[in-house]
Amino acid sequence: MKQYQVTFYPYNKSIDVPEGGNLLRAAIAADIYITSSCGGNGSCGKCRILLKEGEIKTEVSSKLTREELAAGYHLACLSWVMSDLLVDIPPESRLGDRRILAEPKKEKTDRRMLTPERLSILSQDWCSLPMTEKIFLELEPPSAADNIDDLSRLKRALRLTQGIEEFHPDLSLLQSLAGILRKNEFKVTLTLLRTSQPVRIINIEPGDTRGRHLCVAVDVGTTSIYGQLIDLASGRMAAQASDYNAQIACGEDIISRIVFSQRGDGLKKLQDLVVKTINGIIHRLVAESKVKTEAISYLMIAGNTTMIHLLLGIDPKYIRETPYVPTATLLPAIAASEVNLDLSPGAQAYFLPSVSSYVGGDITAGILGTGIFKEEALTLYVDLGTNGEVVLGNQDWLMTASCSAGPAFEGGGIKHGMRADLGAIEQIKIDDQSLEPVLLTFGHKPPKGICGTGLMDIVAELLETGVINQRGKFNPDLESPRIRKYNRTTEYVLAWADETAIGQDIVITEADIDNLIRAKGAIYGGISVLLEAVGLGVEALDRIIIAGNLGYHVEVHRAVTIGLLPEVPVEKIFFIGNGSLLGASMAAYCRDSYKQSNQIARMMTNVELSDHPGFMDEYISALFLPHTDETRFPQTTARLARRLAKSQ
Amino acid sequence: MKQYQVTFYPYNKSIDVPEGGNLLRAAIAADIYITSSCGGNGSCGKCRILLKEGEIKTEVSSKLTREELAAGYHLACLSWVMSDLLVDIPPESRLGDRRILAEPKKEKTDRRMLTPERLSILSQDWCSLPMTEKIFLELEPPSAADNIDDLSRLKRALRLTQGIEEFHPDLSLLQSLAGILRKNEFKVTLTLLRTSQPVRIINIEPGDTRGRHLCVAVDVGTTSIYGQLIDLASGRMAAQASDYNAQIACGEDIISRIVFSQRGDGLKKLQDLVVKTINGIIHRLVAESKVKTEAISYLMIAGNTTMIHLLLGIDPKYIRETPYVPTATLLPAIAASEVNLDLSPGAQAYFLPSVSSYVGGDITAGILGTGIFKEEALTLYVDLGTNGEVVLGNQDWLMTASCSAGPAFEGGGIKHGMRADLGAIEQIKIDDQSLEPVLLTFGHKPPKGICGTGLMDIVAELLETGVINQRGKFNPDLESPRIRKYNRTTEYVLAWADETAIGQDIVITEADIDNLIRAKGAIYGGISVLLEAVGLGVEALDRIIIAGNLGYHVEVHRAVTIGLLPEVPVEKIFFIGNGSLLGASMAAYCRDSYKQSNQIARMMTNVELSDHPGFMDEYISALFLPHTDETRFPQTTARLARRLAKSQ
Repeated sequence: MKQYQVTFYPYNKSIDVPEGGNLLRAAIAADIYITSSCGGNGSCGKCRILLKEGEIKTEVSSKLTREELAAGYHLACLSWVMSDLLVDIPPESRLGDRRILAEPKKEKTDRRMLTPERLSILSQDWCSLPMTEKIFLELEPPSAADNIDDLSRLKRALRLTQGIEEFHPDLSLLQSLAGILRKNEFKVTLTLLRTSQPVRIINIEPGDTRGRHLCVAVDVGTTSIYGQLIDLASGRMAAQASDYNAQIACGEDIISRIVFSQRGDGLKKLQDLVVKTINGIIHRLVAESKVKTEAISYLMIAGNTTMIHLLLGIDPKYIRETPYVPTATLLPAIAASEVNLDLSPGAQAYFLPSVSSYVGGDITAGILGTGIFKEEALTLYVDLGTNGEVVLGNQDWLMTASCSAGPAFEGGGIKHGMRADLGAIEQIKIDDQSLEPVLLTFGHKPPKGICGTGLMDIVAELLETGVINQRGKFNPDLESPRIRKYNRTTEYVLAWADETAIGQDIVITEADIDNLIRAKGAIYGGISVLLEAVGLGVEALDRIIIAGNLGYHVEVHRAVTIGLLPEVPVEKIFFIGNGSLLGASMAAYCRDSYKQSNQIARMMTNVELSDHPGFMDEYISALFLPHTDETRFPQTTARLARRLAKSQ
Repeated sequence: MKQYQVTFYPYNKSIDVPEGGNLLRAAIAADIYITSSCGGNGSCGKCRILLKEGEIKTEVSSKLTREELAAGYHLACLSWVMSDLLVDIPPESRLGDRRILAEPKKEKTDRRMLTPERLSILSQDWCSLPMTEKIFLELEPPSAADNIDDLSRLKRALRLTQGIEEFHPDLSLLQSLAGILRKNEFKVTLTLLRTSQPVRIINIEPGDTRGRHLCVAVDVGTTSIYGQLIDLASGRMAAQASDYNAQIACGEDIISRIVFSQRGDGLKKLQDLVVKTINGIIHRLVAESKVKTEAISYLMIAGNTTMIHLLLGIDPKYIRETPYVPTATLLPAIAASEVNLDLSPGAQAYFLPSVSSYVGGDITAGILGTGIFKEEALTLYVDLGTNGEVVLGNQDWLMTASCSAGPAFEGGGIKHGMRADLGAIEQIKIDDQSLEPVLLTFGHKPPKGICGTGLMDIVAELLETGVINQRGKFNPDLESPRIRKYNRTTEYVLAWADETAIGQDIVITEADIDNLIRAKGAIYGGISVLLEAVGLGVEALDRIIIAGNLGYHVEVHRAVTIGLLPEVPVEKIFFIGNGSLLGASMAAYCRDSYKQSNQIARMMTNVELSDHPGFMDEYISALFLPHTDETRFPQTTARLARRLAKSQ
């Protein structure tokens, strides 16, 4: 078959593609991440590319305007290579610089935020008994009078010095034992897995290496993957890194990933992609800290149920089919190498347990990390990930629900939506009179799009200034060049083309606002159902914790203004950033915490909202800013009314 | 680099070899087994080939006569390819038909022989609780009211129906669980590893497969590998097969294999070769029995310490270096797939424990199989393998020694030595007067060489007829065309060239006889040391058991005549054939037997003969037929004296 060369700009990366090859797949193969939320079926319209040279076969998409088609725009997923090509990836289709996610710590952080980075300070207090232990042994070298085999020699020493009567040696230990014993005069450091029965030796090193004892906590998100390298010898965090989950190219949400997994070798491909991403993160952590991969004894992994299934190569098919049954919620530790994670043969991978198909180990981790499960205070935990889960409870009980909020909080489904990445609009202030905005962007770069935090902030500000009404529709009486009709919808221009990084106007549309209203309605509906189920009112809440990778400048009161959260005093609301990573780090530091995570998962009662009779009513009543029932948001409603009166 | 085609006759197999490639390695790569006992350094002179066409670079070897060189003979190990070649492998260099070893059962067997094939009858009596257990479960399919995850569903059923509170699921189980549960309405058969703590599930199959539950017992010998497929459901042996250990091409004995393992990727190569041989045996067992490989739950493997190290990819280097320390004697079970054995992912491999570097799991297996360790009778167990080990003891104590007998008993180091294979001379009768022989060959084929049994028989017969004296030298006074001087040694012609399968005279030389005397001297010396160590005389022995793949027509009294065994009444001597396979089968049938093997190994006191002050004296005194000390063999000496007197 004929091969053509496809070159992608601005990356200037080329790849050979057979005639008729799909352009989105070619980009994936070339390691270029193009946004695509539908998994490549043309329905999301996100994977826009600009054809500079060459010939493609293409399907016409309703997602592109006539002008765009004329200008040479196409959807990569609906384009097939028919000659050598020069292709430009426009800024709005780029997934951005992969590295910057690792550096939020350099940003000013909200005072209310308990970030994973602070954990190493906290960890001093509560626990530092990790899953593995390193011990140093000086064995008697063999002689004619004492020529028992090496393994028996090791056993004898373990019995005499550690009181360990029995242990299970892995094959990799047997393969390296003789050589390593003799490398440093029978002085060795063993890495023991004490939690295993009998004890397992997962690594052996010549000499005394007790000072080099590491593990990695990993949060495997649908969109992004975060890793923290933890130095178990010192109890400190050594490095952190993150990356987009390379599976994004196969669909932006869980459902499209599951659909992708059902085609051909889709499952294998998804597994390879997530493993590749995690390996990349491990390599960066190791390189940054100047340690050896061999010193990493285990991974502690938190992720939603589907992500963990895919990572382990377990078919997620039934997660999506009624009655929504995953293969497993409580997972055994495995050898990391079993799924091709690039660690030494004995290194383990642990998984935070999930609760159900749609309440995963990331949520269990969040509950572990925040300590809700061991406090009297009644807490509402809200995770604004690509899905959206809520947990309600305290030390005595925990209830949870998955809300199918959709990806709006991560910038998905929004015309200029993007992740909390450089150039993302995070905050806005609109002048009452001129209706001109002041924008705050992530990294103070020229605006590129709107992240989850920004979306909440913009909608709240539009509402407070009366630019939109409580149904999310633009006030037709206002006159401003910022407010305009376009493609049968109304939109507000946040930034003019020449101010932006993408060379076009960045707007928020009524459709975007509607998406956010539906997302927040789902979350609020879930919260209401949980509160109702236990017969408690909003006033009973001692605390609300928001978790998620929304961005780092969260004005928590905005979440009440739009009716995402129930109206509680703002002091009760906390934002913790990545709760999943927080919990994974905690479990990584401390084997008791890991055990507790299992108790937490078992303790959580999952309410299946799709089956719940009251949920739909709650959801529909919440499709209003902040809510159709004014009595639920008395202060917000009063404030909005005052504002409105003032401006008239 | 230039590539040449080398074609091997009579196999008519071709292979491409780079210029300068070694011819012995080329043969190995082409899957052609050429005899070679030195591992390819030119010292054994066994890998003779006949160059028919083409050009080689070669080193002159003292192992070839001038006539042979002129006729085109070369040593494959000292030949390097310089053009396309046609090469003939002469019969004496061929390892023979690989299949025939599987069929000794079709031969008439000695009455005294307890063969592994009889084990399936025996097994009915003593035990049939294998390592794994198959159970059939009918689960409730999930519903909206009961949508726990699949693994929890399985756990619940195991708790309710089997009382199993906890178990460890392998990753492969998790990967297949959802699909298999749904293949036959949540009716499944599980294979449980009850011996593991907690219980492990190593396989899951749809429907009720309890009737298909198999394992394989394997004897991994230095020379040959034997396998038996055992049907655990019926308790019967389903099939057996064997093959040469493909490692032979890398050296004929343990030491040359260890030497080979130290060069480059030698260890990996040796591991691959033995794994390939075992996989081939498994495939034949499975094909012959028309079962599926997936139905095999485990392997039970017995082999000498070096063979097991190589199979597991463990460096055997220190086995050969004083103080002779192996990596491990007691090995954990591993997943068979960890060493690329072609079984389903959960299938286990168990290993009979060894005692020391030179007393391996094959000997432990022999003691297990013969039941010596649980009987009052004092038994001497002699394994005439490529090495030669002896065990002395009973239910109260066991002593063992490895005798470094060399490979004479398997036909190694003997001019026309060969394995117990088609055409091997097994028995001889020499006419007192004419000195003409009558030969019995294996499979009644034209003679091709002499196997271990034949060698003992020939030397005993030559001694009894006065053709040789008690020092193993030919009687110079005898006149016969059969006795002749050749290359500064004297030899006896067993078969003339035109009677043989190899087109040349088959002889036994004084050097061969000397080799046997040294081999039997080492064994007898070992026996003497053990008896002496416990202060017992020969008369205390209740039983002598000979194990080994010597051939199938063992005239046990001949072993006394030559002084291999101490002089005991012939009724006390038993030949059991492959003791290692016998014990492996036993352990495979019965997990209690497997446990006992560990006790046996721990119970055996190993006497290191190379360090033993008395051994050298005993060895030297035994370099005589039957022995320098006539009082130890009074009846044999008297009989020989009578014979001699009669013939004079």
